[in-house]
Amino acid sequence: MTVGIALYGLGTVGSGLHRILAARKDRLDKRHGLDLELRHIVVRDPARPRAVAVDPALLSADLDAPLDDPAVDVVVEVMGGIEPAGTVVRRALEAGKHVVTANKALIAAQGEELERLAEEHGATLRYEAAVGGAIPILHALRGALVANEIRRIRGIVNGTTNYILTRMARDGTSLAEALERAQALGFAEADPSADLSGTDAAQKLIILARHAFGTWVPESTVARQGIEDVTTREIEDAARGGGSLKLVAEAALGDDGTPSLRVAPTVLDADDPLAGIHDEMNAVVVDGDFAGPLLFAGRGAGAGPTGSAVYADLVEVAGIRRHVASGG
Amino acid sequence: MTVGIALYGLGTVGSGLHRILAARKDRLDKRHGLDLELRHIVVRDPARPRAVAVDPALLSADLDAPLDDPAVDVVVEVMGGIEPAGTVVRRALEAGKHVVTANKALIAAQGEELERLAEEHGATLRYEAAVGGAIPILHALRGALVANEIRRIRGIVNGTTNYILTRMARDGTSLAEALERAQALGFAEADPSADLSGTDAAQKLIILARHAFGTWVPESTVARQGIEDVTTREIEDAARGGGSLKLVAEAALGDDGTPSLRVAPTVLDADDPLAGIHDEMNAVVVDGDFAGPLLFAGRGAGAGPTGSAVYADLVEVAGIRRHVASGG
Repeated sequence: MTVGIALYGLGTVGSGLHRILAARKDRLDKRHGLDLELRHIVVRDPARPRAVAVDPALLSADLDAPLDDPAVDVVVEVMGGIEPAGTVVRRALEAGKHVVTANKALIAAQGEELERLAEEHGATLRYEAAVGGAIPILHALRGALVANEIRRIRGIVNGTTNYILTRMARDGTSLAEALERAQALGFAEADPSADLSGTDAAQKLIILARHAFGTWVPESTVARQGIEDVTTREIEDAARGGGSLKLVAEAALGDDGTPSLRVAPTVLDADDPLAGIHDEMNAVVVDGDFAGPLLFAGRGAGAGPTGSAVYADLVEVAGIRRHVASGG
Repeated sequence: MTVGIALYGLGTVGSGLHRILAARKDRLDKRHGLDLELRHIVVRDPARPRAVAVDPALLSADLDAPLDDPAVDVVVEVMGGIEPAGTVVRRALEAGKHVVTANKALIAAQGEELERLAEEHGATLRYEAAVGGAIPILHALRGALVANEIRRIRGIVNGTTNYILTRMARDGTSLAEALERAQALGFAEADPSADLSGTDAAQKLIILARHAFGTWVPESTVARQGIEDVTTREIEDAARGGGSLKLVAEAALGDDGTPSLRVAPTVLDADDPLAGIHDEMNAVVVDGDFAGPLLFAGRGAGAGPTGSAVYADLVEVAGIRRHVASGG
């Protein structure tokens, strides 16, 4: 079965997905009988040279045309940012198209509304890549952990700050020096404020909490402290005590069922499973009442890891479409 | 929608599942519109007193009756061992019933044949609980990692031996003493030979390799060394070098695509993610060509963790049934 795809965005994640679609085309057809066909690629500047070999006939800057194309079954939104991404996602869902996105800012801000919209229009909305890159934590919370009530979930979900804290701990460098190195290696953006301030981690935590507890928490109620003021001395003090200082995102349910979410630099004991997560790696720890504690760790960013997560959502969503199509 | 279940076996895993079915009945109905109804519980001795409160009308020792009951949609096999479990699973699949099992010995020995049988009869066979207890590694390999070619997977997949090695390392006790303690705590069976010899780990590795590489490897070709001859001294030597000695199960694809599987006591560097997996915990590390390295860790055994994995398979399989039913 052929499933038509419109891809919005061809930056790091979009290019990664583009490569995976090409590399896995034959295998997906052979194993799953699925052909994911790219029908549109929407970018800001179609004339710009690209690192990936893209069929130029697919490229355009037209945000609307793919949404009106009945041959598009799934919209993949990897532009990032609230707008125009939000409008594209809303219009796609209203047209009954499935949506896969990696957009944590959009989902953290409007996830509740977008999920309602998806349900109203019989569409599916998936966003595994928005949290923890390649780590399939949302898949696990939705599927493999379905038996469990979850009252606490925590993790290291921002690779940039984890890289910086690791460098400060291992090399004794200042935050400014470590940030510079992270930027040189592509682990930090030119404007690192969303990472350093904990905003990125807070958005991911909101998405984790929604999957763990079933409720959406407004971003304004997340207690948030970034790493801007962390000193080499604090990190050394933590190490002397046998621990390590990490930017930890944690969501817990109170006895009355109220979720509380918090992002803050935290000294972890050496035997904390998150204490061993270094450099740009991400990890999530979740406690299920039947399953017990589980740790998931992997790369939280980059073309391959994030593209891998988007692709998995895409195949799942295409499979749902197939179920419906073959049944009806 | 109501889905009828026949449960074969009410030992540790069966009791765990029974508890979960009761605890999550309302939630499953509310969230998924699913009612998993136990219609038969097959045990060796129906008269034996049970730790879980079971409806006595459901209990019987009759292996055949549930398979002939058209009100049974899914058979859950948690008896363990090759027979009569194998016959029950085969007959269930031949009757077009979905099967969920936790039986690593059966799947390692006959998985290929059973999967073929399932396909022929339009049934689904799932066995997440057979490897790594609560860790959703098969779910991940099948779903979240679908973008990836996997050439290597390794793990600590036997909790009994990991507990023993951890005690030997931390307390300096002999293998015999550590084994006794493991038995007292319920982490080792009265006859621990399948664990100590690496047979249990080898069976789980076969299942991991099937999901990672797509091929079934005969048990006789797995290179296997147990922990029977591991000495406290070897463990101390490993620790002095900064490493730790673990029973590691590893499967890799050669350049020609031939899988090689190996279970052996292995000295791990301190920075190996498996080096930090202690006591009865299990973990699996998998490298995806796009996703990069991923670590999954959690409890590898016990009523709750294993029951949690069986339940997840059960809900998935019931959902597949629902798709078909609502479509057709």
